[in-house]
Amino acid sequence: MDIKPPYYAVIFSSRKKNSAEGYEQMAQRMVELGSSMPGFLGIHSARDTEGFGITVSYWRTLDDIKNWKHNEEHMQAQKQGRSEWYDAYEIRICLVQHQYGLGTL
Amino acid sequence: MDIKPPYYAVIFSSRKKNSAEGYEQMAQRMVELGSSMPGFLGIHSARDTEGFGITVSYWRTLDDIKNWKHNEEHMQAQKQGRSEWYDAYEIRICLVQHQYGLGTL
Repeated sequence: MDIKPPYYAVIFSSRKKNSAEGYEQMAQRMVELGSSMPGFLGIHSARDTEGFGITVSYWRTLDDIKNWKHNEEHMQAQKQGRSEWYDAYEIRICLVQHQYGLGTL
Repeated sequence: MDIKPPYYAVIFSSRKKNSAEGYEQMAQRMVELGSSMPGFLGIHSARDTEGFGITVSYWRTLDDIKNWKHNEEHMQAQKQGRSEWYDAYEIRICLVQHQYGLGTL
């Protein structure tokens, strides 16, 4: 993802429960839905075998992030996440100021 | 990690080579060394079974990040990472503006 800063990142760090029925399907649907939203720039995601995961999504503006947060289907997923899928999570809204790298992820 | 914004995040997204000899040991050493640096606030890391990983480290100031980047032992690890361990990576320096969550990660 080679987009010139400044833009925004949402860092979502989470510890998933051992039994999280329906999680995979919903996670996949949220990537699909999020990717279709205005201002979406990209997403990276990794979860280890212990259930700890980090997903970072990238957005053009803070308003784009707010709009995605309040999407009705996404709000339903957030609710289910809080009650069924996650033991704990942290969400951070960040302004990306600098970027560099090697090769193509 | 419950620290009041603003502070900084370094998002390191990477795709590791299949054979990355010495990687685990160095990664562990870098967490240990980084954690001892001035301004270090915390670190989260996840790598999936395909070798894609995200590590986010948190810092008080941009100068703390620069200081860590230029640490001699860290620079040696960066060099080895470029030549031996990673197929590709992206690094982003971000200002964390908002934070919320559920439970304790």
